[in-house]
Amino acid sequence: MIAIDWGTSSFRAYRLDAAGAVIEQRSAAAGLLACQGAFETVLAQQVAGWDDRAIVMAGMIGSRSGWLEVPYVDCPAGEAEIAAGLREVNAPSLPGRTVWIAPGVVHRPPQAPPEVMRGEETQVLGLREALAGDGPHWVCLPGTHSKWVLVEGGRMRSVRTAMTGELYALLRRQSLLGALMPDAIDEDIDDEPAFAQGVAASAGAGGLLNQLFGVRTQGLFGELPPPQAPSYLSGLLVGHELRGVLPSGVGVAHLVGGDALTRRYARALDLLGVTALRHGEALSAQGLHRLAAVRGLLD
Amino acid sequence: MIAIDWGTSSFRAYRLDAAGAVIEQRSAAAGLLACQGAFETVLAQQVAGWDDRAIVMAGMIGSRSGWLEVPYVDCPAGEAEIAAGLREVNAPSLPGRTVWIAPGVVHRPPQAPPEVMRGEETQVLGLREALAGDGPHWVCLPGTHSKWVLVEGGRMRSVRTAMTGELYALLRRQSLLGALMPDAIDEDIDDEPAFAQGVAASAGAGGLLNQLFGVRTQGLFGELPPPQAPSYLSGLLVGHELRGVLPSGVGVAHLVGGDALTRRYARALDLLGVTALRHGEALSAQGLHRLAAVRGLLD
Repeated sequence: MIAIDWGTSSFRAYRLDAAGAVIEQRSAAAGLLACQGAFETVLAQQVAGWDDRAIVMAGMIGSRSGWLEVPYVDCPAGEAEIAAGLREVNAPSLPGRTVWIAPGVVHRPPQAPPEVMRGEETQVLGLREALAGDGPHWVCLPGTHSKWVLVEGGRMRSVRTAMTGELYALLRRQSLLGALMPDAIDEDIDDEPAFAQGVAASAGAGGLLNQLFGVRTQGLFGELPPPQAPSYLSGLLVGHELRGVLPSGVGVAHLVGGDALTRRYARALDLLGVTALRHGEALSAQGLHRLAAVRGLLD
Repeated sequence: MIAIDWGTSSFRAYRLDAAGAVIEQRSAAAGLLACQGAFETVLAQQVAGWDDRAIVMAGMIGSRSGWLEVPYVDCPAGEAEIAAGLREVNAPSLPGRTVWIAPGVVHRPPQAPPEVMRGEETQVLGLREALAGDGPHWVCLPGTHSKWVLVEGGRMRSVRTAMTGELYALLRRQSLLGALMPDAIDEDIDDEPAFAQGVAASAGAGGLLNQLFGVRTQGLFGELPPPQAPSYLSGLLVGHELRGVLPSGVGVAHLVGGDALTRRYARALDLLGVTALRHGEALSAQGLHRLAAVRGLLD
């Protein structure tokens, strides 16, 4: 089968053998924004030469701005519920194929706004073996909008999003705080002590809006040199994310993502007394393979 | 005397009678950034025709990027300490005048970054009569960087800053949340129910970084119409500011600032069970008059 993770700005395709192992892999600058609606044409180009019958996709391709809006599946959501929510799209220029899009997951807490994800749920499904046992298992996919998923008994019970990465980028690039930092953002260092100091500061009084200003005053008073300030800011934000989202008493959390980011989150979790288990990003192929198997799409 | 509030982007001058009442007032687009270092020339132009001897200034004009860096006065700081910290600047092109700059105030909490203000302290001094009695009195000057000052026994005991206004502007203009709101930022309405809903949401679980994402999901699910979203976002941020900065049990808070902003903060305080007393912005003239009197600069 072919598994595809198709997001707003990225496209990743995996060719899998019958057991779900990756045989080949392709990526392209063919995210939704770049496709201008020509999804079928782009897909046909990208899978050319791979003659597998079943194509299963996840990510924003199933959103309102994608190929077909596939309704969210409600929490608690396991592989059975998500597989049942797969929708087939009509793709006449891909004869002999069946093309499916996986649904996202919605969590509707009683007294708070709904929470959603599209794409991350297949990565969580790909963690299946690591999440064996009843749980609770906490899974974090850090990023522009970090996702925290609570898995119990093989089903996703809750989702929580933190806008940590987006806020970091805004503050680093466009705020008064960023103005005190080095101009060359691309050369930002990962300073471990400054990051740890930021994580520690997030436990203090005053709240995030107050503590952010500490980046500036410590700069003014020579207590935080400009090259260390981005790491301090990152630690402060990640600290707030963890303290806001993780209930106390959690002992272990799973991190899914790129090496640099999960390392950083693992350090922050460690400072909070939580053991981090890091996993690579290429889990969505496994998750999509699992969905295809459950739905009976594999030959 | 002449009292001047000279900030990064604004210049306001007041001519006061012997009792401290404002006789005349001028403002100019002559903030520090516009002066390019020619502070003496700008001052001479702005006070032309006002022949009072004593000129006392406050604000960023006393910072490192101003005319003369006047050292901060440590908390607890009352009018005696701040008056003692006034520094005279040499202004040969203003013969027959004495030109003074007031210091800012620094608060150095034991386990947190230092907190500073320059200019706001003269507004707090101008509130003298409203802050009679031992206190504690909480004074808030909302804005890009809101200042919270605790006054006890006539002296400023602590300062706390919240980057609420700056964060609001960043999120409204440049974030994914802003992308869901109407394009015409200048036409944003002040929707009281949506603002109150945001203040209420700030009491929920998940922390600010999580709750911000609720602006997006409520938009996606049709629970928060785009014209109301800016007010909801504002309420969420102001709610976090108040909950972060104000200790529980505070019954009254003073608000100093423009009408629209202090009205909004008063509504948020009310929702938290705190009575707001609103004051206009033109308090710095009174504060500077008081400093001049204490220092013996009045004829």
